[in-house]
Amino acid sequence: MKKNILVIPGDGIGPEVTTWGKAALEKIAEIFGHEFLFDEALMGHAAIEVTGDPLPDETLEKARKSDAILFGAIGHAKYDNDPSLKVRPEQGLLKIRKELGLFANLRPILLFDELLQASSIKPEILRGTDILFFRELTGDVYFGEKTRSEDRNTASDLMIYHRYEIERIAHKAYQAAQQRNKRLCSVDKANVLESSRLWRETVQEIAKQYPDVETEHMFIDNAAMQLIKNPKKFDVVLTANLFGDILTDEASQIAGSMGMLASASVGESTGFFEPIHGSAHDIAGKDLANPLASILSAALMLEIGFGLKEEAKLLVDTIDEVLKEGFRTHDIADQSTNRFKVLGTAEMGKLVLK
Amino acid sequence: MKKNILVIPGDGIGPEVTTWGKAALEKIAEIFGHEFLFDEALMGHAAIEVTGDPLPDETLEKARKSDAILFGAIGHAKYDNDPSLKVRPEQGLLKIRKELGLFANLRPILLFDELLQASSIKPEILRGTDILFFRELTGDVYFGEKTRSEDRNTASDLMIYHRYEIERIAHKAYQAAQQRNKRLCSVDKANVLESSRLWRETVQEIAKQYPDVETEHMFIDNAAMQLIKNPKKFDVVLTANLFGDILTDEASQIAGSMGMLASASVGESTGFFEPIHGSAHDIAGKDLANPLASILSAALMLEIGFGLKEEAKLLVDTIDEVLKEGFRTHDIADQSTNRFKVLGTAEMGKLVLK
Ligand SMILES: CC(C)[C@H](C(=O)O)[C@@H](O)C(=O)O
Ligand SMILES: CC(C)[C@H](C(=O)O)[C@@H](O)C(=O)O
Repeated sequence: MKKNILVIPGDGIGPEVTTWGKAALEKIAEIFGHEFLFDEALMGHAAIEVTGDPLPDETLEKARKSDAILFGAIGHAKYDNDPSLKVRPEQGLLKIRKELGLFANLRPILLFDELLQASSIKPEILRGTDILFFRELTGDVYFGEKTRSEDRNTASDLMIYHRYEIERIAHKAYQAAQQRNKRLCSVDKANVLESSRLWRETVQEIAKQYPDVETEHMFIDNAAMQLIKNPKKFDVVLTANLFGDILTDEASQIAGSMGMLASASVGESTGFFEPIHGSAHDIAGKDLANPLASILSAALMLEIGFGLKEEAKLLVDTIDEVLKEGFRTHDIADQSTNRFKVLGTAEMGKLVLK
Repeated sequence: MKKNILVIPGDGIGPEVTTWGKAALEKIAEIFGHEFLFDEALMGHAAIEVTGDPLPDETLEKARKSDAILFGAIGHAKYDNDPSLKVRPEQGLLKIRKELGLFANLRPILLFDELLQASSIKPEILRGTDILFFRELTGDVYFGEKTRSEDRNTASDLMIYHRYEIERIAHKAYQAAQQRNKRLCSVDKANVLESSRLWRETVQEIAKQYPDVETEHMFIDNAAMQLIKNPKKFDVVLTANLFGDILTDEASQIAGSMGMLASASVGESTGFFEPIHGSAHDIAGKDLANPLASILSAALMLEIGFGLKEEAKLLVDTIDEVLKEGFRTHDIADQSTNRFKVLGTAEMGKLVLK
């Protein structure tokens, strides 16, 4: 198989983890005889520094021409501390999602048995959890009109949904549920929000086309609670952009660490694969970051982007083995025992490739 | 002390738990020689059934005249399943918050040592946690304009904040932090939302007036994760209406159960005290609900509403004792051991009063 892959390292720990996601893809190509052609591009703070634009035209062009994108992370403390800055790294990520029509963000909560102990949640609560999130990615308050009054004292963001936006991701989520445990939980705040009422109405309609899937509707506040109270009860979770952002980060505690989770953004054509962790500037360049989420992003690219299940499985199994042998990065190492061999970013990356 | 207290039982398990909150107040009045005069009023589905209005004028009038309100719960499955219904129970709650100017919702995460085991989170992660949430309650996407297009295919809610709304609750939160561990974490999504950028800007300004308090700003997605990863690191958490709704429900897992948490909504005059749990129609009328959150709501009324610290402490200590003796309601009983004596709503209520 021949594929063009664009690597966008981005900000903070992005470059150092993406190195290993890319290396994993190269290794897979070598083992299975595929031809992966790589290109690289700038986005976020890294792009602002060079071009003044968080998503330069050149990056967007390269993105459109590629079959899949491996992304690192975005964001920088400078902007977080100064809310008044007009040009912001995150605009690059939001724009590329919109431009490429990446309306569905898939986040599998993959539980490595070896990491059950790394979570703040009790192992007996976690064991057996297997959740696939479908987060809507190109609508909601993320993309609705933003205003700031002239006196700067009033600010607003429009939370808005169109029926077709809900329908298309609902279909994807239901189809996935059919392949899994046939349960779908749609999360909204329909007791307060009109956009959530449209969400619920639409999902209720689509549900009729999938009578083999059991549908539940849950309010976001309750879902945020149930997710940690009893994660096993969830199979596919379908939700809006903002609620999905919150729930999936929360769910990272189920997997033991954010450093272990990857996501796939798909839609009209090119898929976009990234760790769910952020740019983590505080540890950037210190060889402390966990490269496994980037390698798992590569696995998602192989599986979801290219349909290469066997190749993806090899990566996941290798990570599983490395964990079984007791190797950990700092974020997933229980410091209170010395059962673990704690590795830096590069050592862990090399080990998995071996 | 002489006080007029309005009891609004509301929907679902509201009436059966509120009975015990009210009884606790009567008992306290008796013991300490206060005069509490009670009145009762309808709200939510209960009010719609009788008057067609989720907040009848009579209720609002009584509310304005009272010194404090003890509330139960709101909501009904009928409305949840039919997003197209125009008149909805929750409108009553939102309207009374707005009309009484209840802009600050305080939710202490009170940890009973005895309940550490009831949480899905590991006891060693929880132990020592003591968080006070300040959730803004009369702004945000809850109250911004709602629209639905004529073809019913587009729906929106305006997420909007005015600077003064942020300032007044920020002051309250900082003042509370000064009395506590002098740390304040403000939660927003300033990397994406303009209303959050106004939020962050404003909090940064107010922070200067409280140099003895250490301020941290956190994105909501990260906060949802940190809250369960390391709850001890939080002292006062300040956030907007929607984010607060989500975070405080999530935080209920820290306390072992939602059935143990109460909240105080305060602002211009009359305070409003309620359990954070919902109407839980599935268990309503079955003597399964936990009355402790309503009794703790009464304790908050005594402490925050009337400044009666000793009286409040007596209630909290009594609950602590009852738990120490091994008594539990269903929601907080670990069914896997028989160390606990599991009680119904009424038995638990009576026991605390004794
Ligand atoms: C960086 C930010 C804009 C982004 C989001 O909120 O979508 C991130 O948190 C994510 O979840 O991918
Ligand atoms: C019932 C609902 C409108 C309410 C809210 O979202 O504010 C509830 O969840 C709460 O937290 O008090």
